[in-house]
Amino acid sequence: MKNLLLATFITSSIVATAQVQNKDVHKFGAYINRSEVRHEVRIPKIDGMVPLKCDLHSHTVFSDGAVMPSIRVKEAWQHGLDAIAITDHIEYRPHKKFVLGDLNEANKLAQKAAKDRGIIVVEGTEITRRKPLGHLNALFIKDATKMDVKDPLEAIDEAISQGAFILWNHPGWPDDESKLYSVHKKLIKESKIHGIEVFNQYEYYPASFDWCNDYNLAYVGNSDIHTLTSINFGMDAIRPMTIAFATEKSSDALKEALFAKRTVALFNGEIAGREELVKKLVKASLCVTNVGGDKIEVYNNSDISYNMTFDDTVYIFPASKTVRITMPKKGSFVVNNCHVGTGDKLEVDAEELFSID
Amino acid sequence: MKNLLLATFITSSIVATAQVQNKDVHKFGAYINRSEVRHEVRIPKIDGMVPLKCDLHSHTVFSDGAVMPSIRVKEAWQHGLDAIAITDHIEYRPHKKFVLGDLNEANKLAQKAAKDRGIIVVEGTEITRRKPLGHLNALFIKDATKMDVKDPLEAIDEAISQGAFILWNHPGWPDDESKLYSVHKKLIKESKIHGIEVFNQYEYYPASFDWCNDYNLAYVGNSDIHTLTSINFGMDAIRPMTIAFATEKSSDALKEALFAKRTVALFNGEIAGREELVKKLVKASLCVTNVGGDKIEVYNNSDISYNMTFDDTVYIFPASKTVRITMPKKGSFVVNNCHVGTGDKLEVDAEELFSID
Amino acid sequence: MKNLLLATFITSSIVATAQVQNKDVHKFGAYINRSEVRHEVRIPKIDGMVPLKCDLHSHTVFSDGAVMPSIRVKEAWQHGLDAIAITDHIEYRPHKKFVLGDLNEANKLAQKAAKDRGIIVVEGTEITRRKPLGHLNALFIKDATKMDVKDPLEAIDEAISQGAFILWNHPGWPDDESKLYSVHKKLIKESKIHGIEVFNQYEYYPASFDWCNDYNLAYVGNSDIHTLTSINFGMDAIRPMTIAFATEKSSDALKEALFAKRTVALFNGEIAGREELVKKLVKASLCVTNVGGDKIEVYNNSDISYNMTFDDTVYIFPASKTVRITMPKKGSFVVNNCHVGTGDKLEVDAEELFSID
Amino acid sequence: MKNLLLATFITSSIVATAQVQNKDVHKFGAYINRSEVRHEVRIPKIDGMVPLKCDLHSHTVFSDGAVMPSIRVKEAWQHGLDAIAITDHIEYRPHKKFVLGDLNEANKLAQKAAKDRGIIVVEGTEITRRKPLGHLNALFIKDATKMDVKDPLEAIDEAISQGAFILWNHPGWPDDESKLYSVHKKLIKESKIHGIEVFNQYEYYPASFDWCNDYNLAYVGNSDIHTLTSINFGMDAIRPMTIAFATEKSSDALKEALFAKRTVALFNGEIAGREELVKKLVKASLCVTNVGGDKIEVYNNSDISYNMTFDDTVYIFPASKTVRITMPKKGSFVVNNCHVGTGDKLEVDAEELFSID
Repeated sequence: MKNLLLATFITSSIVATAQVQNKDVHKFGAYINRSEVRHEVRIPKIDGMVPLKCDLHSHTVFSDGAVMPSIRVKEAWQHGLDAIAITDHIEYRPHKKFVLGDLNEANKLAQKAAKDRGIIVVEGTEITRRKPLGHLNALFIKDATKMDVKDPLEAIDEAISQGAFILWNHPGWPDDESKLYSVHKKLIKESKIHGIEVFNQYEYYPASFDWCNDYNLAYVGNSDIHTLTSINFGMDAIRPMTIAFATEKSSDALKEALFAKRTVALFNGEIAGREELVKKLVKASLCVTNVGGDKIEVYNNSDISYNMTFDDTVYIFPASKTVRITMPKKGSFVVNNCHVGTGDKLEVDAEELFSID
Repeated sequence: MKNLLLATFITSSIVATAQVQNKDVHKFGAYINRSEVRHEVRIPKIDGMVPLKCDLHSHTVFSDGAVMPSIRVKEAWQHGLDAIAITDHIEYRPHKKFVLGDLNEANKLAQKAAKDRGIIVVEGTEITRRKPLGHLNALFIKDATKMDVKDPLEAIDEAISQGAFILWNHPGWPDDESKLYSVHKKLIKESKIHGIEVFNQYEYYPASFDWCNDYNLAYVGNSDIHTLTSINFGMDAIRPMTIAFATEKSSDALKEALFAKRTVALFNGEIAGREELVKKLVKASLCVTNVGGDKIEVYNNSDISYNMTFDDTVYIFPASKTVRITMPKKGSFVVNNCHVGTGDKLEVDAEELFSID
Repeated sequence: MKNLLLATFITSSIVATAQVQNKDVHKFGAYINRSEVRHEVRIPKIDGMVPLKCDLHSHTVFSDGAVMPSIRVKEAWQHGLDAIAITDHIEYRPHKKFVLGDLNEANKLAQKAAKDRGIIVVEGTEITRRKPLGHLNALFIKDATKMDVKDPLEAIDEAISQGAFILWNHPGWPDDESKLYSVHKKLIKESKIHGIEVFNQYEYYPASFDWCNDYNLAYVGNSDIHTLTSINFGMDAIRPMTIAFATEKSSDALKEALFAKRTVALFNGEIAGREELVKKLVKASLCVTNVGGDKIEVYNNSDISYNMTFDDTVYIFPASKTVRITMPKKGSFVVNNCHVGTGDKLEVDAEELFSID
Repeated sequence: MKNLLLATFITSSIVATAQVQNKDVHKFGAYINRSEVRHEVRIPKIDGMVPLKCDLHSHTVFSDGAVMPSIRVKEAWQHGLDAIAITDHIEYRPHKKFVLGDLNEANKLAQKAAKDRGIIVVEGTEITRRKPLGHLNALFIKDATKMDVKDPLEAIDEAISQGAFILWNHPGWPDDESKLYSVHKKLIKESKIHGIEVFNQYEYYPASFDWCNDYNLAYVGNSDIHTLTSINFGMDAIRPMTIAFATEKSSDALKEALFAKRTVALFNGEIAGREELVKKLVKASLCVTNVGGDKIEVYNNSDISYNMTFDDTVYIFPASKTVRITMPKKGSFVVNNCHVGTGDKLEVDAEELFSID
């Protein structure tokens, strides 16, 4: 039979289907059902630590999201994430009149969808208040219902007692002003805030980079997705995420990595994180070979492109490609897509960066 | 500022965002939010009729789907469809314990999401019974609650009285057997079935092609999507659809086109429809220019590739590309990806197909 | 046989091959040989004029290029161009010791390769001198050998006598200085320069935009390709080109369009041309539909994306996509990727741009 | 400045350019010049051996090709190859009247272009005769001029004396008949043929698979490119190649790997090679993780997709993707895209293939 496949963008295919093709039914074939195919986001290990790709802020019909929790799990798995947190609002549940279930229901359904699938569901919830306090995610909780109290500081304490990691969400939203209020300072001082969501959906908060550095808080980046990540970011785009360098791929190891602040935020080709860790990431991503004379070939083994300036000159190291350049003389690169503080980009010495592997 | 965009697959971009970029907040920019960008599926007009791309079979949390109705509308709009039908099961509502709302609720929410957006919401519902009757969609209904009755034939009659188009769904599911039962013959005879869903998700039912021809029923193709089309089919894939050639882009014109049987089903590069209409589609898609000698250049102005055999030789006319070939001598092409009956592929005379435009 | 196609990026396919598949030989099939498949670059007609896509500056082994003339023709055809000029240097022929043939040989071979193929070969040559005169292409010549004289002004006169269109190449190369010397002013005054190559390969010369406007010269953009356009620009990139709006696709019509200055230069998403023509192009590319309320959907029917600013807000209209936006109030758009003079971007009134089609 | 990048398919970017952007000249920037960016073809190591990707059959203007030797080097480097052989015909030089240079000139120019670039140029030439002998490449030669003799068997002997690897090219071309003539049997017996070009451009020769196995000859696949690989195969396609598993990336190591027959041929997603080696390749490409229950996730770490059948069911493991499947019970997979003999596909025991890593 000359019936050839004419589909154009086959970027992935699938699974297994019994090949039934007769007059009664013609099944298009294994490669059509993409739901069991996962894109991978390639990030190198650092110091033997595995990079866990996480989205720690998402919504479902159980608050103001538009999908069932299972969808968040499937999306995340398909997009190459290792962990997803369902963080429905405690206080804001607009579908309440036709979506029943207590504050733990979403997470239960998510855990069910994640069974026998290589993805970690981080149980979470979002404390949703007006500024100055704003929004905070409580992650690795056990029981969200106990956090449904009038005083948000009590809710935080309850979360802490459950062993939670507390994330201060999108400081600059919704008023485009990022401000470290006294309530935050107090919570930070009391070790009741452990990270800041420096990247949220389509924006980031430069002021918060220095807060992470100064107060030793984790850099975190999330989608805060309410509809579909494919609609908002596209199927092939690398969605907003947090990369946590952990000892292994497990919930406990992820939790340890977050508390150890061993994270970077990533979206739209931009990275934010502590200088030391970001530098290691860039160095681990670029593999250098000397090809003769003063020429080197630099292979970027990751899915993040790097854009750097050396003196006047822009260098780009695209994801998964090799670039052939003249070995730069003495001096430093400014890595334009890597934020290590408010207004600060990563700087790396050329020799250190391009030492031959 | 040398902060260049490093995202790789920017296949589309977006809308408008005020460009706020300061220390408090840095908005990534207009091109990140893709939710207001729509892929188009290019199909030529035929006889002055506009091709309306429709998915007439989808599910939401209001039956056994996993998303809110607004998601179906947004997905469909983003994927280049002109019409979507929300056809939740009448009889099967597994989320019933925590999703409340009567049988019309899904469609109301869908209509709301479609306001001020170039997409038609076709109000529908799915009568869901075991074989022999099987599943049928009632489209262009006014009130689904009145169809929630014990006897499915009464439900059909009620739908008919509301002016509905009745679609017999996936005849070969779930037992991989396509059979025209006496109940269907009777309904067809009484003009209570108007179309057959010859393509459903990942399969099609060759036997049903002849039924469409013999009983003058519309060829229809749908996704029957329960989760996300991006997960099942990929963002860039052309999802299963029905192309209805209508006088204009409106609900009434769509209804007229469906009752007139002026449709083809499309998925994975394969088309099924009446010979006359399919032939017109192929001819309208291929634009021929004589470039000298016996060479012609054939431009496929659509998003559907065509694969044909002439004698021993396979010709491919990829979507949106031009192909340079030797004008074939006398004889016929078999168009391998176009079904016009059970076991029948479209045949077109070479001269007729490649008459110079 | 379950031998399914696993190739990933099939963006185009091919021709016709007899399907021989036996023990002696297995031919992979029609879709593998891409040499007879052409990408199209979609540009709308303007005032009934067809957009001819041209590259009027290329080199072969007959001067300092690295390929035979036939390659330039095949590349150009495959990349969607309508016309290519082979403009080998008169004075600089580094392969001379092993590539023989007079100054017309390259064009003869190109014409041969273009036979029975929908592409126009514009016979040309490049007068190659130091600044102040610099480099100039003589296009639509008849005999390049007569231009091989000591005095370049004589060479120009000879070209003029052959009816040539004279193009002043890359004014800012190689010293990054764009200067209108007295020799140019004189030639312009004598109508012996008809156009300026405002875009050349990877750069453009903003100063030259005003010269085109002030002296009524054609805006031209070319690749000046010496190696392969695929290597320099990528297979899927739209290579540098000139779009000439002509009465039909023919050499005479192209010549008329160039002398009439009915051209824009295009590369890397940027356009340069006379305000009136560029505005018509943008308006013809954007098709507006009112979808209710104050929302419009804007479909870009071309392969050029447009990036505009209205007040503070950036709008992007990606190639071949539809964007849904709020109809802007009174005011003007600045079209950021459209140059209409030195330091001048196209400005269009919102109502004029988005009048409903 | 709001001048945003609008290019669509930026799959790679580039190098370093001083960022000059003023009125005189605006350089588009580093990312436009792609000539120093290389796509990589990801293949895993086997037994510590590095996979060298080679094309051992190409032509230039020095015989009947259309480009300078430098182009072959640049194409190959850009396409992710590690080695290229320029194998111009000894006996057939149609451009001879205007391309001068002895039979070693092409290789000299190629070596020059490869200086300071991570690619190996294998010096070669093609003995080009009618059948029964046909065409043979002599690789790793020192002086092609000495092979320009009347008796091809003398030419072969001369090549052997220079230490060459002799490759019997495209046995089934041009008459679509693959036959092992007595001259070949004799040469094989005398160890004067070391490999067979089982894949050539768009076809392969199934009969030759058994010959490789039976006579212990290397499986080789090449492009035999005369024009441009981008034109014939597309820029993003993986061009025809031989993968030689060598101790390191060097000319000597490549030669050793070829003589050791440690090779597979690859094109269009199909592989041909000795069973033992092909099996190791497949196993090294698929990384298995147990995710609970009877589910496993299989990550394909290479750029070759695999298509397998287990009983009735087709499984696809797309390049660079992860697939989630039910661990198959006892039995064998037939790997449909892997040829290990004439009419023989690789078979692998399920447990052996999917042992957890």
